Amino acid sequence: MTFPSLDEIKAAHQRIQPFIHRTPMMSCEAIDRLAGCEVRFKCENFQKVGAFKARGAANAVTKLTAEQRRNGVATHSSGNHAAALARAATVAGIRSYIVMPSNAPAVKKKAVEGYGGEIIECRPNLQARETTLQGVLEKTGATFIPPYDFMDVVEGQATCALEIFEERVTADEPVPFDVVMAPVGGGGLLAGTALLTNYVSPSTTVIAAEPAGADDAYRSFHAGELIPIDKPNTIADGLLTSLGKITFAAIMKHVDDILTVSDEEIVAAMRMIYERMKIVVEPSCAVPLAALLKHSPRFVGQKVAIILSGGNVHLNKLPFC
Amino acid sequence: MTFPSLDEIKAAHQRIQPFIHRTPMMSCEAIDRLAGCEVRFKCENFQKVGAFKARGAANAVTKLTAEQRRNGVATHSSGNHAAALARAATVAGIRSYIVMPSNAPAVKKKAVEGYGGEIIECRPNLQARETTLQGVLEKTGATFIPPYDFMDVVEGQATCALEIFEERVTADEPVPFDVVMAPVGGGGLLAGTALLTNYVSPSTTVIAAEPAGADDAYRSFHAGELIPIDKPNTIADGLLTSLGKITFAAIMKHVDDILTVSDEEIVAAMRMIYERMKIVVEPSCAVPLAALLKHSPRFVGQKVAIILSGGNVHLNKLPFC
Repeated sequence: MTFPSLDEIKAAHQRIQPFIHRTPMMSCEAIDRLAGCEVRFKCENFQKVGAFKARGAANAVTKLTAEQRRNGVATHSSGNHAAALARAATVAGIRSYIVMPSNAPAVKKKAVEGYGGEIIECRPNLQARETTLQGVLEKTGATFIPPYDFMDVVEGQATCALEIFEERVTADEPVPFDVVMAPVGGGGLLAGTALLTNYVSPSTTVIAAEPAGADDAYRSFHAGELIPIDKPNTIADGLLTSLGKITFAAIMKHVDDILTVSDEEIVAAMRMIYERMKIVVEPSCAVPLAALLKHSPRFVGQKVAIILSGGNVHLNKLPFC
Repeated sequence: MTFPSLDEIKAAHQRIQPFIHRTPMMSCEAIDRLAGCEVRFKCENFQKVGAFKARGAANAVTKLTAEQRRNGVATHSSGNHAAALARAATVAGIRSYIVMPSNAPAVKKKAVEGYGGEIIECRPNLQARETTLQGVLEKTGATFIPPYDFMDVVEGQATCALEIFEERVTADEPVPFDVVMAPVGGGGLLAGTALLTNYVSPSTTVIAAEPAGADDAYRSFHAGELIPIDKPNTIADGLLTSLGKITFAAIMKHVDDILTVSDEEIVAAMRMIYERMKIVVEPSCAVPLAALLKHSPRFVGQKVAIILSGGNVHLNKLPFC
């Protein structure tokens, strides 16, 4: 399996500039004091469409051939990837077809439509999704852009860590991060983060954080083989999916450890981010901080970068309300 | 009445540097599209203690004489000023005495204690507050730092607008703001903002926003005399207080207009800030955006700076949960 090179990731970063924000890194004295280390948060909750997914979708769209562009792109998703692909396609001036289950929340459908995506409804099960997507691809000739297990998407997600390592203490002195942490669901963000970190700062430890109720990455990592999870159950609704072949391979090669946390620990970390940092994050986003706080002795005195993956949360259903 | 000069405000800004963050300005394409103008939000919700109040309190503390420092500072408040004064005093290495009503939320007391303030409880009415404070002042010799109707506090709050007008399009080109908007309660932030704007950009319009259920500033402004409100009733709990003599005088002189909004409009704007900007704000903080959206025709095509005053909200009681 050939992963993107550093030059290819840098080229991707250039190519997707018109599609993305350069998100800020924030720190919080109160959290540093509690954790006993120095944390910088990469705020992808401020990213376009409210999540890092904007990067991978944009990268996939910018790599289409002229012929592919004529027929547009398609995917099946009810989450951030759907919105990200719809927006990237619209910015690129091409069509997008998004297969969504008929019971997807109205607010998600509205977001996809708002970004210019064309929604095709299907019955709410995986088989119906795949059959419907197949029908769309055949009818339109659109190119399928999978949400994570796709090299162009991993390459795009890797640009987030590229920006992390461009942080400077002074003009010439990079921030010497000891650890980079990312949440893991399908593994696109984690795979990209691990690849990039291995290129630019191989001495930095890459640690993933996963909900205990959807711990397929944890189990696969330790078994050395893909063990998808059957019935994931966690408040971190962005991390329900299992790893794919590509993301698993990258993770086995370049990730140092995977830590799991309970939903209770996730909610406590989420609340801390709202209260102390005054920013809105989705539950999935709080998983790495939860893992850091749970295992704080191993991070004492270190410089840690945490990717806050997204901010698309149901405000009516915040877990601490 | 002699207001602080521009040089004095600049000196205050230098003096309080060890006490404050330089808060970022954020923008949001979705809100710009909805409003039909270009808005930059000065994020004082990211300020130390979660509110602009850190500025005024720090300024008052840094202006104490050596003798005053020995006896510390005191105030009565259950809100952001209490936390701000406690923290400023601790950073300056002096004591602070905070008179709080016995029914103040535990979380507020904890915050004041966490910042190193000494809490003196009193019965929950204005007379008890004042009597108790008087007792504290006599006993300790502490200096009273009022929350808003106090020149050093107004001077400190003015440093927020100073930072707004330091924003640059390019290295040499300032952002030509047509309008600056701030919420108004006791009027410290508004008075400081109006003073500073008059000094550095007199052609910029200064517009205040106020909850209809606590509209003493609106009524006082139009009557040309102070008309305190008796029983304010609004979700914007940081704006319940009425103007004081100093803040009223500055506002009459340099504020161009005051707009009022309903609690429903405040909650809608607050929700928009959470959903679109992914940041946590308190209800008071959403009042200017609510006013901008209500009166959007008069702002079409303009460049507007809005001060987001604070982010100390009860997460268990978010109005859209």
